[in-house]
Amino acid sequence: MSSPLHILVSNDDGIDAPGIYALVMELRKIAEVTVVAPDKQQSAVGHAITVNYPLRAVPFRKNNEFFGYAVEGTPADAVKLGVRFLMKTKPHIVISGINHGSNTAINIIYSGTVSAATEGTILGIPSIAVSLTTYKEADFSYAAKFAARLALLVAEKGLPDRTLLNVNIPAVPENQMRGVMITRQGKSTWDDTFDVRRDPANREYFWLTGNMNVIDTDPDVDQIAIRNLYISVTPIHYDLTDGQMLEAMKGWALEKLR
Amino acid sequence: MSSPLHILVSNDDGIDAPGIYALVMELRKIAEVTVVAPDKQQSAVGHAITVNYPLRAVPFRKNNEFFGYAVEGTPADAVKLGVRFLMKTKPHIVISGINHGSNTAINIIYSGTVSAATEGTILGIPSIAVSLTTYKEADFSYAAKFAARLALLVAEKGLPDRTLLNVNIPAVPENQMRGVMITRQGKSTWDDTFDVRRDPANREYFWLTGNMNVIDTDPDVDQIAIRNLYISVTPIHYDLTDGQMLEAMKGWALEKLR
Repeated sequence: MSSPLHILVSNDDGIDAPGIYALVMELRKIAEVTVVAPDKQQSAVGHAITVNYPLRAVPFRKNNEFFGYAVEGTPADAVKLGVRFLMKTKPHIVISGINHGSNTAINIIYSGTVSAATEGTILGIPSIAVSLTTYKEADFSYAAKFAARLALLVAEKGLPDRTLLNVNIPAVPENQMRGVMITRQGKSTWDDTFDVRRDPANREYFWLTGNMNVIDTDPDVDQIAIRNLYISVTPIHYDLTDGQMLEAMKGWALEKLR
Repeated sequence: MSSPLHILVSNDDGIDAPGIYALVMELRKIAEVTVVAPDKQQSAVGHAITVNYPLRAVPFRKNNEFFGYAVEGTPADAVKLGVRFLMKTKPHIVISGINHGSNTAINIIYSGTVSAATEGTILGIPSIAVSLTTYKEADFSYAAKFAARLALLVAEKGLPDRTLLNVNIPAVPENQMRGVMITRQGKSTWDDTFDVRRDPANREYFWLTGNMNVIDTDPDVDQIAIRNLYISVTPIHYDLTDGQMLEAMKGWALEKLR
């Protein structure tokens, strides 16, 4: 690396969230850090980008000093705007997080945290998504330290084109963690239900709820590794072609459908 | 199949778009059809779902008769609400489209059309996303016919768990199409730029623009097949684990990062 390490940080919990603050404070010890993040919480936005509306970015201050740019948009918007417009040079690494809550199994598809890192990867930058696996009040300090160490390793090793790392860290004290595991994305999905309610004008509305239906049992699956108190590091990519099905479909005689 | 074919149709262009209308009219010839679609255009929403706001669904009429349910939400919301709440029985197939514009290469990641079909797959239903590859005024009739024939084939053959079909149809007269090709997702991405403007109050804002930077050349890539006037059928899945990288990372000694 010819110039000092420069890291772009984003998230989906919004620029004022405690997870991004802990991450930035830790990363500033090892790198120049630019923060470009949504101005407000953007959970479950998937890989949304804003094409039909304008984006805005305003300086955001914290502790009476400039902290980063707050973008009225999605996590992917923030990373795109950061890399393509706000930053003078391309960052060496993009880190998204630290998310307050896990991003494992099917949730990777819905995750705004992962989406910001995916956008970094699309832009040709090694990228990492980091989540702390609790929805309760949490201490992000160990997760931030781990993220910083992993950033240095990724800066050294690089990542393949179109591959990013999805990291989940158990929300337990450091001495209770059992190790770091390279994992696979789990297959579990949600048993969605819709809570039916009535607004003050007596119109029906629905609120999405439900439980994760955990079907995996293998220890090297992201969700199970977390349950077993391992830090989970999953290499993911967005080459979505199903090669096996592609071969199988050659027997389908699709030409007959014309 | 024990009961008559029942198809759930959604899209991302909104329930009033001409593409979904053409598709529904054609599918009604072969199946019972339920339409649950966003109430307005939702392009580039990726796999967003609504978790922090309530959803609403209202009956939508077209030509003085009930056409389907208009959902204030994303394409994935519409499919989830349709399958989990509005429909009495699970549909046999979910079809999303017909999108007005192509969904190939990196655009698959951003696509609301593909997202609706992905949600169908997550819910365990064989699903198909269909796009007509033009942004100009278009005739959806041939694409709708092809989608209906493919739906019948998928009803017969089934699809593997977690695999869906992403179909793109060239916007040319039927006699100019050269065939149907089973394709791979292309690797092309966007050369994004942000157009900087000032609003009436002189505040800066940004508008995303740019061109697709086509890097693929192989004839069996979605984008290239379309260019060569083939109907492109890509089997895609959302098992995002990068197996090759997973093996490579075993040499990274991640345990040392603790």
